[in-house]
Amino acid sequence: MERQWRGKFPVNRRKPAVELGSGVRKSYREVIDVSWGDPHRAGVKPLSFVRQVLAACLYSELMDGDKLMVDVKQRAQRLLGTCAGGSVGSYCATAGIPQTLQSVSQYIMRRDGGVPCHPENIYISPGSQWALTNILKVLVNSEASPRTGVLIPVPCHSTTIISLTTLGAVAVPYYLREERGWALEMEELQRALDSAKGVCNPVALYMINPGNPAGYVQSRKSIQEVIRFAAEKKLFLLADEVFQDCVYGKESEFVSYKRALAEIGAPLSDSVELASFHTASKGLMGECGLRTGYVELVNLDPAVMKHINNLFSTNSCPILGQIALDVMVNPPQPGDPSYPLYLKVRHFYLPASLAQNVRRVEEVINSFPDFSCQPLEGGAFAFPRLFLPPKAIERAKEAGLQPDTFYCLRLLEEAGVLFSPGTEYGQKEGTYHIRFCIMTPSDTMEEILRRLSAFHEQFMKEFS
Amino acid sequence: MERQWRGKFPVNRRKPAVELGSGVRKSYREVIDVSWGDPHRAGVKPLSFVRQVLAACLYSELMDGDKLMVDVKQRAQRLLGTCAGGSVGSYCATAGIPQTLQSVSQYIMRRDGGVPCHPENIYISPGSQWALTNILKVLVNSEASPRTGVLIPVPCHSTTIISLTTLGAVAVPYYLREERGWALEMEELQRALDSAKGVCNPVALYMINPGNPAGYVQSRKSIQEVIRFAAEKKLFLLADEVFQDCVYGKESEFVSYKRALAEIGAPLSDSVELASFHTASKGLMGECGLRTGYVELVNLDPAVMKHINNLFSTNSCPILGQIALDVMVNPPQPGDPSYPLYLKVRHFYLPASLAQNVRRVEEVINSFPDFSCQPLEGGAFAFPRLFLPPKAIERAKEAGLQPDTFYCLRLLEEAGVLFSPGTEYGQKEGTYHIRFCIMTPSDTMEEILRRLSAFHEQFMKEFS
Ligand SMILES: Cc1ncc(COP(=O)(O)O)c(C=O)c1O
Ligand SMILES: Cc1ncc(COP(=O)(O)O)c(C=O)c1O
Repeated sequence: MERQWRGKFPVNRRKPAVELGSGVRKSYREVIDVSWGDPHRAGVKPLSFVRQVLAACLYSELMDGDKLMVDVKQRAQRLLGTCAGGSVGSYCATAGIPQTLQSVSQYIMRRDGGVPCHPENIYISPGSQWALTNILKVLVNSEASPRTGVLIPVPCHSTTIISLTTLGAVAVPYYLREERGWALEMEELQRALDSAKGVCNPVALYMINPGNPAGYVQSRKSIQEVIRFAAEKKLFLLADEVFQDCVYGKESEFVSYKRALAEIGAPLSDSVELASFHTASKGLMGECGLRTGYVELVNLDPAVMKHINNLFSTNSCPILGQIALDVMVNPPQPGDPSYPLYLKVRHFYLPASLAQNVRRVEEVINSFPDFSCQPLEGGAFAFPRLFLPPKAIERAKEAGLQPDTFYCLRLLEEAGVLFSPGTEYGQKEGTYHIRFCIMTPSDTMEEILRRLSAFHEQFMKEFS
Repeated sequence: MERQWRGKFPVNRRKPAVELGSGVRKSYREVIDVSWGDPHRAGVKPLSFVRQVLAACLYSELMDGDKLMVDVKQRAQRLLGTCAGGSVGSYCATAGIPQTLQSVSQYIMRRDGGVPCHPENIYISPGSQWALTNILKVLVNSEASPRTGVLIPVPCHSTTIISLTTLGAVAVPYYLREERGWALEMEELQRALDSAKGVCNPVALYMINPGNPAGYVQSRKSIQEVIRFAAEKKLFLLADEVFQDCVYGKESEFVSYKRALAEIGAPLSDSVELASFHTASKGLMGECGLRTGYVELVNLDPAVMKHINNLFSTNSCPILGQIALDVMVNPPQPGDPSYPLYLKVRHFYLPASLAQNVRRVEEVINSFPDFSCQPLEGGAFAFPRLFLPPKAIERAKEAGLQPDTFYCLRLLEEAGVLFSPGTEYGQKEGTYHIRFCIMTPSDTMEEILRRLSAFHEQFMKEFS
């Protein structure tokens, strides 16, 4: 959820409170905050079909007027019919509304070219992170000795690191190879596993695909290698696939771990344990505030499923989130009155503006000799490497800060742009990165790049 | 959340699947489900002011038309201003939107006659149960020997029992005295604490006030006795006060544990540790599906607060829920265009129809010699005692069921009314109860009582 580091790096959005070093104040009208994976925060507009259906479900008088298209009303009517008492204000089964579980399972089957998916293996939850934390609770024995280990990529989505640590697990890092577009290499996985010997007992392997913070997309071949590795080492696979709809590399394609596993065939396809996570917070929806995600579980022991069922039985996903999820997996179809507008956003506006952002970010960042951005294939972020001069590193140390945190604070103070430092996600010793969300309107991205460029040039000059 | 027992007692809402014993089928148009603490499910209408504000926040075009009152639009505008990017689809700080935390703390201060309340001691969460589970995680050491104990009332809200058990804690029961209107007696608390000796290490005392499933309201005196007891025994107080707005006994008044603690004065008021829970799921709002609650923490050690902060940092409350919460603690005021309608529901319609339900339930249940209902002072439920004939108990045992479960299944099958059996909440050995929600429209309650009466008479005759 990208919000934890705020605790370590306190920021007042209205008025940067910190003043470090230069004392120079650039003028800017307002802070642009692209430190979260949060499209709406960055100015992306919500999908009107989704919002209209939700509004109609909440406020039934909207069904009478002529403000809403007939398919919006029909959809709202149908979804309200799945709620107890016909109200989005009622409780539902803790795993989710049965009809929505059904919709999600059909969506997964379509996505995976027909690989079977059963609603009883799906839990809809208040955010995908909550689902992940629950699954981790089952895997991690917080009092075990040696402690439970979970292999995680470096760099890694920071909330997962917090979940792991809070549960008392050891995060065993495997480093993605930046120079090869953040590739996951099998020798590195093996090295990571070996490094755990005598330290902890690794039980699971966590991957983020497409990546966060690094914007890679794993190939089918890479995924299948990882699956075979997990099978051989008896590791539970945790596939964080929340960015599955965010792929923009020309050569890239999202392949789910579930599908890749099915394609390998028996005996692996019947035995490797897998949890796959998805959400309404990302992609075209970008509805982070609704708190809606789900997990699909594959090949789990029935006894373990029972325990998981218990963990999911003390909370359920907000009903409005489930309604949005149902719309997400069943968008308007050709012939529906709302289809033309939906199509425009889905197939033209968003991809076009994202593609433009990607191109511009790569272009601008790589135009600096001391900045380097790997090709952005998917996800929601750019995670360029920053080659900082020794003097800047020294100054940061004097201030008791990591060098990239120092850079980000100065950027905030002087240019009014809020990024997050690579140090929050893990990075190879001695390397520095910054992360920012690329899901913004194009003109916002231009403004960000303009401010960043001016600041960067100035900063590098100051410390050269 | 009242939903777990459904797992143990599988129910198909459309067609009762179980047929036990009689084979007699009564005719009914549809099943009335009052087994949950869920007003909308039982047919209560949502508050239109709340729903209109939420709809306007979701779908901004509603701000332009003339469908909505000006105060609705202003409220929506103001609350959207507290969301990042002006969208309810963005993430917020994990403790809650700062302005909403502020609103809640002011509300608590007003409720408690000015006792100070600080926003930084409040966590808004996806449902109050989630907050309770998090606080329990801090209190319960799942691997300790002897195990951690938590004193809980009998009968007790069932989800809390599940949370405790899942965390590996021992639930130490203290029995409420049914014949005295489910009074909490100090000798019984002492007995319960003594009973834990050699079994577990009791660290906390959980109370539900007003009660669930039993409909009592604790007096100020009783609360202060409990606080002194907790202070003496060094127990953490967990005050589940989600029904604080559901008080209808003429002599009853809700007094918060926080206020009672403050009124006791130092040194207790500065030392007894307290967590108090509230929610948007109950009372006038009844918005269970939004998943919104909060906890206020009093007198906690800063180190413990830090740990709690970590636990709350992997999820946040849905934004729409927080907006509803803000409206709940700041309802329309005299002079606002929406005030007259709000006033009608708040002060006339709901209290009148609830008072009528309460009167009718007590009247009808107590008219049977083998049924007995204590005065209903608060909460959302009736929990009458059922004096079952030996033959019914025998038949239940033959079917492998608890006697009150047997009764509820037969009631469902023959009368199409869904209650939950006392056995789900704990009850004194050899006593039997049923629980049902009394927050329904008056005509629904009449229909429930009509069906129940006819069934009950028939059932008792069958087994006499
Ligand atoms: C990789 C990854 N996983 C999970 C999440 C959590 O998403 P949700 O809002 O569904 O909890 C995020 C959010 O940024 C993420 O980046
Ligand atoms: C006593 C009690 N506490 C907590 C809850 C949970 O409410 P929420 O919907 O806020 O999680 C309930 C719900 O029925 C309840 O009865």
